[in-house]
Amino acid sequence: MDKAVGFYRDVLGLVETGRDDQGRVFLKCWDERDHNSIILREADTAGLDFMGFKVRDEATLDAFEDKLAAAGLNPETIPAGDLMETGRRVRFRLPSGHLIELYATKTSVGNGMTMTNPPPWNAQSENGIAPTRFDHALLYGPNVAEVERIFVDILGFYLVERVLGPGNETSVAIWLSCGQKVHDIAFVEHAEPGKLHHCSFLLESWEKVMRAGDIMSMNDVPVDIGPTRHGVTRGGTIYAWDPSGNRFETFQGGYYPYPDVT
Amino acid sequence: MDKAVGFYRDVLGLVETGRDDQGRVFLKCWDERDHNSIILREADTAGLDFMGFKVRDEATLDAFEDKLAAAGLNPETIPAGDLMETGRRVRFRLPSGHLIELYATKTSVGNGMTMTNPPPWNAQSENGIAPTRFDHALLYGPNVAEVERIFVDILGFYLVERVLGPGNETSVAIWLSCGQKVHDIAFVEHAEPGKLHHCSFLLESWEKVMRAGDIMSMNDVPVDIGPTRHGVTRGGTIYAWDPSGNRFETFQGGYYPYPDVT
Amino acid sequence: MDKAVGFYRDVLGLVETGRDDQGRVFLKCWDERDHNSIILREADTAGLDFMGFKVRDEATLDAFEDKLAAAGLNPETIPAGDLMETGRRVRFRLPSGHLIELYATKTSVGNGMTMTNPPPWNAQSENGIAPTRFDHALLYGPNVAEVERIFVDILGFYLVERVLGPGNETSVAIWLSCGQKVHDIAFVEHAEPGKLHHCSFLLESWEKVMRAGDIMSMNDVPVDIGPTRHGVTRGGTIYAWDPSGNRFETFQGGYYPYPDVT
Amino acid sequence: MDKAVGFYRDVLGLVETGRDDQGRVFLKCWDERDHNSIILREADTAGLDFMGFKVRDEATLDAFEDKLAAAGLNPETIPAGDLMETGRRVRFRLPSGHLIELYATKTSVGNGMTMTNPPPWNAQSENGIAPTRFDHALLYGPNVAEVERIFVDILGFYLVERVLGPGNETSVAIWLSCGQKVHDIAFVEHAEPGKLHHCSFLLESWEKVMRAGDIMSMNDVPVDIGPTRHGVTRGGTIYAWDPSGNRFETFQGGYYPYPDVT
Repeated sequence: MDKAVGFYRDVLGLVETGRDDQGRVFLKCWDERDHNSIILREADTAGLDFMGFKVRDEATLDAFEDKLAAAGLNPETIPAGDLMETGRRVRFRLPSGHLIELYATKTSVGNGMTMTNPPPWNAQSENGIAPTRFDHALLYGPNVAEVERIFVDILGFYLVERVLGPGNETSVAIWLSCGQKVHDIAFVEHAEPGKLHHCSFLLESWEKVMRAGDIMSMNDVPVDIGPTRHGVTRGGTIYAWDPSGNRFETFQGGYYPYPDVT
Repeated sequence: MDKAVGFYRDVLGLVETGRDDQGRVFLKCWDERDHNSIILREADTAGLDFMGFKVRDEATLDAFEDKLAAAGLNPETIPAGDLMETGRRVRFRLPSGHLIELYATKTSVGNGMTMTNPPPWNAQSENGIAPTRFDHALLYGPNVAEVERIFVDILGFYLVERVLGPGNETSVAIWLSCGQKVHDIAFVEHAEPGKLHHCSFLLESWEKVMRAGDIMSMNDVPVDIGPTRHGVTRGGTIYAWDPSGNRFETFQGGYYPYPDVT
Repeated sequence: MDKAVGFYRDVLGLVETGRDDQGRVFLKCWDERDHNSIILREADTAGLDFMGFKVRDEATLDAFEDKLAAAGLNPETIPAGDLMETGRRVRFRLPSGHLIELYATKTSVGNGMTMTNPPPWNAQSENGIAPTRFDHALLYGPNVAEVERIFVDILGFYLVERVLGPGNETSVAIWLSCGQKVHDIAFVEHAEPGKLHHCSFLLESWEKVMRAGDIMSMNDVPVDIGPTRHGVTRGGTIYAWDPSGNRFETFQGGYYPYPDVT
Repeated sequence: MDKAVGFYRDVLGLVETGRDDQGRVFLKCWDERDHNSIILREADTAGLDFMGFKVRDEATLDAFEDKLAAAGLNPETIPAGDLMETGRRVRFRLPSGHLIELYATKTSVGNGMTMTNPPPWNAQSENGIAPTRFDHALLYGPNVAEVERIFVDILGFYLVERVLGPGNETSVAIWLSCGQKVHDIAFVEHAEPGKLHHCSFLLESWEKVMRAGDIMSMNDVPVDIGPTRHGVTRGGTIYAWDPSGNRFETFQGGYYPYPDVT
């Protein structure tokens, strides 16, 4: 756990915002305002417990809970306070095996800069790789077609790009957005359920991607691939491994997607 | 008009997509897919006739029309076909004096690249300054507080940044987003109604901003200010003038805004 | 040959400046002023015939010829006119098996821009990968220690970096500069004489390296390695293969070396 | 003096390497290896006492001293040890009123990184603006034509670029290099002798120039001009003012010059 925290705080350069009595460590990226976006817990194996999305407000959370129940997805509620500075969470399992959570409330702790006349960045912005935000995750599991329908029909995401399988009849990989980030979550069809391919962190420029690679090299972080450009999304990227064996991505770029592209 | 078209097509590097029988010239940025985002018409003075926003679909357009009417904003309908490849438009005048239009339908002509296995860019991407998209406009006029309420309460935008006036009691400038672009439209309080400060075009990097400045210099485009970084939005920018005396911006960067930041 | 010329002219983006009656094709990079820096000839195998360095003037060439002769390197003279727009060349073979040439005279054809009030770049600068200059070559062969002595003692180069072999007693690779470019030529100890590892072309920025990679990808150029950063010289680089099977490099960066660093 | 040292060390981001008993403060850029490249002393007015160039060795220094004497430039010797970690200096006054010094010996203190398997940069590289090296100075004074002859005929520099005066008969500004940096010193014709226009510090990229501008803005450093691109040398630049009123430059880029360009 110490090695993991050291990596996320000093090499990846997230800001540690708290630890709870279960020993979980809460972190955020320097330009994020909510209390936490990455939570580490000690475990026997690498992987992702769940991925959460913030919704507009508690009424929206209620509405999503109802829609998930109506779709037979059996949402569970986890009461406020289970995670530090985080309100009630609605959790459900995707047919790919992954747990997804929605929540409306997380305490804003700011980005370390004044709200009035803020500078463009501060010293935190150069502490380690220092991504501006947790951006998306790519998950592996079965039933990607059903997952797509849940994200599109129930959660209001839209399909940005996809990889077609043999015969071009089914999507073997999908990239989904709920706004104008080129992806908020992505899935690859895979027999084993609930797998994490990578968690992804956003950088401001291709030069910052090189800087990330330098920092990986200087800290003996094993690189999976990159720097290179993605065919999907056009992003400039490096994939590498955290000390626990979770793949992570530091990337920049990509276009603004719109739901009306056909 | 020839000089203006030459500038927008060869120096700014937009793609000309058509001309109508009124002599209007329709252009788009290379990475935009809809038929047009900038329309030039011959006029005695510089300025902006209207700014349009695309909405999700025709039902959404109807709903906005009703809400605008209910708010006493007297929306007018302009039938499909008045602008090339563009559906029905709903137009209303802001208390700042500007005409805003909504529409749901514009023909997609693509971005010049295949939808299957597209390259990251093509030759159009290096024709002149070659912004990826028309991004936003900054407008000057009176009654900015009322304008903000219309955009927030009726059109679903949210306030991203603002400049406060003396005593910090009113906003003298506001930046509004309807998604996750750091701004889609902005207003500055100003006695004279209906004024255009600038139309803004998005570039991919700070290096592209230097390239834009080089192209301006090589084409005797008068620069207003920049390259520099904005205090608001953190963008890297140049303001310059088109041959008609309209200020335009070529910029990059800025953060992803969220409506829940407080 | 057609494929090779097409690659060097349209993909790598050199400027073709002439062809001679032997069918050799002469090219230069857009920002080079001399008539040619790369010469292609048809051959059964890939490889490098010779590498040439320009010296200050004909008197300097004479002096080098004398020094080479005195060192037993048996320099040969090739008369002016054998290569297009090129004066007398003095040629000798290194103990690594490579032919090196010196010359003092090559016609300046300029860089396509006016000498008075030149712009920073022009359309040639964006034709293909468009390196600014041929920068260096890395050669493989035996007797690197002797090669180093010839370059340092006779030709006035200095050692910038080296890779030490087992026991740190000998250099198994050396990077040599004759000015303030971080390398002008480099050698790796290798049993087989006269081998070319790569010819290298200079780009202005890390963003241009990505652009080079994009162009390679869009033109099915096989990439060897990169984008990445070199441990030696700090350069940002891609190695790839020309259609004949010669490795080439497109890179940027590196520090200014000085001969007095110890 | 405290304010000046604070600026050069914490804002410009040089490394303080020593202070002598006269209260002079010695600094170097992070990637320079010699003990000092900038020396601050308390004074009633802003300006430059002298600018020094390192020569190859003591024999070379002797030879230059003889040539300067032969040219009637009355070189003086300042004994080793007057400046910290610096050998004997040969000083002469240019007809522009500026003092130029040559020296062969200055202690290498390294760049803060190991000589074996060095990383590409370290924490010093991001301390403030953190230029890699002191690059050049631009000086104002009379008799630029004579100054050019001294630098070219005696010191072995060559003219890289120049600004011609009315009628194109004389150079009113000259840029001189003694290697392959696009300039090592520059002069502008000006009636008042001995004036400093600016001292210039090298950055690795245009993005680093923006970062320099950000740091200037966050530290209330008054900017003179920029970011912009120079017409001469193609560099990307900002001019600003140190707390004493000396103009300085942070810049990147520019081409590799060669003495044979005509």
